[in-house]
Amino acid sequence: MAYELYYWPGIQGRGEFVRLALEEAGAGYVDVARGPLSEDASAGALMAVLEQESIARPPFAPPFLKDGDVLIGQTAAILLFLGDRHALAPRDAAKRLWTHQIQLTIADLVAEAHDSHHPLGANLYYEDQKPEALRRARHFREERIPRYLGWFETLLARNPDGDRHLVGKRVSYADLSLFQAVEGLLYAFPNRTKGVLAEARRVTALHQATARRPRIQAYLNSNRRLPFNEQGIFRHYPELDG
Amino acid sequence: MAYELYYWPGIQGRGEFVRLALEEAGAGYVDVARGPLSEDASAGALMAVLEQESIARPPFAPPFLKDGDVLIGQTAAILLFLGDRHALAPRDAAKRLWTHQIQLTIADLVAEAHDSHHPLGANLYYEDQKPEALRRARHFREERIPRYLGWFETLLARNPDGDRHLVGKRVSYADLSLFQAVEGLLYAFPNRTKGVLAEARRVTALHQATARRPRIQAYLNSNRRLPFNEQGIFRHYPELDG
Repeated sequence: MAYELYYWPGIQGRGEFVRLALEEAGAGYVDVARGPLSEDASAGALMAVLEQESIARPPFAPPFLKDGDVLIGQTAAILLFLGDRHALAPRDAAKRLWTHQIQLTIADLVAEAHDSHHPLGANLYYEDQKPEALRRARHFREERIPRYLGWFETLLARNPDGDRHLVGKRVSYADLSLFQAVEGLLYAFPNRTKGVLAEARRVTALHQATARRPRIQAYLNSNRRLPFNEQGIFRHYPELDG
Repeated sequence: MAYELYYWPGIQGRGEFVRLALEEAGAGYVDVARGPLSEDASAGALMAVLEQESIARPPFAPPFLKDGDVLIGQTAAILLFLGDRHALAPRDAAKRLWTHQIQLTIADLVAEAHDSHHPLGANLYYEDQKPEALRRARHFREERIPRYLGWFETLLARNPDGDRHLVGKRVSYADLSLFQAVEGLLYAFPNRTKGVLAEARRVTALHQATARRPRIQAYLNSNRRLPFNEQGIFRHYPELDG
């Protein structure tokens, strides 16, 4: 039976990390919010699941994945599950945990990227917190982007199995997620990110190689891949790119 | 061999979620930053580990746990490891993942609690972002605290094994972490949190019962438990409590 992925319609957002894993695995899935429903109806279907009182394990927020009777929320937990199920993480316990640790750090980066344009909270529009966003984005851009990308570069350099993957010799969901984080940073902060990537050749190579993986390439060229936009997590506001 | 826990000296912070699990497990551990070194020297020891070039799997940030040759970073990943090792999570795969999903949501709550006093970033003092903190804290206090605590209350109510634990019939690291989150909220936002807890009797009961667990009680009464303070994640600034 195909998985059902529930996420907000219209944006890549955190759902995209799950989509990339499902696509690389060649797993059948229904992207509920991308169905024939309108965006409002899709969001309604998602909220209906969250509010069903019969669900013993209700997710706190999207994305969540339905596998028959099992419902899993939290992006990193979904990837932990898919990693085991579809060999997108090593079987060895220590490497499997290390893959997850990297994913959790990518999740921190994603949260900071979001807060760079919404420092006062998701309840206000960007336009209502623009001076604050300018201040927070400067710190993110100048300190955090190089710190994160530098860390990934170090991990690749130190991988005893070679610098083509973050963990082991094969692709893992952490590689796919790093690809997506770099995509997002390049969209949101193109000037700054290109500058930092110039000093991070292994991250750059992983980003390019991932885009050429046959299933990922097919996905990126399909209409299943939504473009980035200014409703998502990675937003391009030129004034925030310095 | 005893574990070594590395975390910033002087605060509970994210390290506290790890300490509570280690204490409940009765596991031997050295809290490196609480040793005989000065705070500066402790922080130095921690940074030295982060910067060692021989480490194949360097954590991005504290806390991290050393178990012989194995180094694990990210609070939720450490707890996933300790949960398996010390039976602080169910063995059943679906319940184990659900425990982790809850932990990841607690991590989100913790990050939001931090940002309520540091919306512009950790690089600036609270005093340099006070008007912004007032705006962000209002949203956190009015919308997010009830949303999170209401979710935990729902989980307890729906646990098929009874409402004394978040998952299954026994204590898990998720219970310990919820205890700590409630402790932190009661410290930082006492007025608001007491009001919300009045409508969440199961969360209140779990919080109280956890404090009475023999090993947790002994820990809370020991000098190993640092008091909350205004350098940590949960800070009490009366103006932010409305």
